[in-house]
Amino acid sequence: MEDRRLEPIFKRRSIRKYSAELVDEQDIEKILKAAMSAPSASNRKPWQFIVVTQRQKLDALAKAHPYGKMLYEAPLCIVVCGEPETSPPSWVQDCSLASENLLLAVAALDLGAVWLGVHPRQERIDFVRKTFDIPDNIVPLNLISIGHPAETKEPRTQYDEVRVHHDHW
Amino acid sequence: MEDRRLEPIFKRRSIRKYSAELVDEQDIEKILKAAMSAPSASNRKPWQFIVVTQRQKLDALAKAHPYGKMLYEAPLCIVVCGEPETSPPSWVQDCSLASENLLLAVAALDLGAVWLGVHPRQERIDFVRKTFDIPDNIVPLNLISIGHPAETKEPRTQYDEVRVHHDHW
Repeated sequence: MEDRRLEPIFKRRSIRKYSAELVDEQDIEKILKAAMSAPSASNRKPWQFIVVTQRQKLDALAKAHPYGKMLYEAPLCIVVCGEPETSPPSWVQDCSLASENLLLAVAALDLGAVWLGVHPRQERIDFVRKTFDIPDNIVPLNLISIGHPAETKEPRTQYDEVRVHHDHW
Repeated sequence: MEDRRLEPIFKRRSIRKYSAELVDEQDIEKILKAAMSAPSASNRKPWQFIVVTQRQKLDALAKAHPYGKMLYEAPLCIVVCGEPETSPPSWVQDCSLASENLLLAVAALDLGAVWLGVHPRQERIDFVRKTFDIPDNIVPLNLISIGHPAETKEPRTQYDEVRVHHDHW
């Protein structure tokens, strides 16, 4: 924690409580720019993003996702989607990298977010696809609930030296 | 690019050329702390890391990986591995988030790195497993080649508004 250059990484925590304040349009664009600066295999960028701010849609996601109740309060959700045919072996990895950049950008802008898993659970994929009329060749990877934090958490690592091996297992 | 808070994200680029200088032990620990601060499904943390600094091992990886020639020059490689049984639906996502944190920490410390894909290509998994005697229940996700940069690249996003949808597809 001592190196200030790494603070933006440790600062990111899962934030599930939000104030009623809306997220600024400019901040939404900044968040998406950060997401799309992630690396991807052969730079194929197999990602798409759905920006959700309609109350009705947010409530529908809150109702359908088993861990999604915070979306009743969140003013914003970004659905990160992948296009498997663009990069069959690595689209999940690539879209996850974009999602982590997205989460870090949220924290950098003093907003808060939490990742709700969708892929590979078929029933979750189905309701998200139906909610937004997502075509069959696109797979929603997650729902990222975003808002102005109404809870605070300390920066942290969860460093565990048992997980570190040197030159062999 | 205009918001300085997001510079640490845009700064990360794929760096494939390195000087002969070794990577400081303290920096390696900082990088691993950043990796392990990533979120994971139900906080299961299905990740393990192999820190590779032995020249012989680095050369073996350089020889075997089809895009790994820069490992002949790199002083450091970190192999991010997953434990699928810990989190069957999401270990690839979780280990990818840790890997992106790792890449961003490298950039924040003014080092350079590039991701070389391993999983799900079986022949790559096999040679990495053999090189480090990795047990069968652990899967190497990638090789991250790291060193002091001997090339510079400008920060960038690859923002593309065509990939952004609003409240429906």
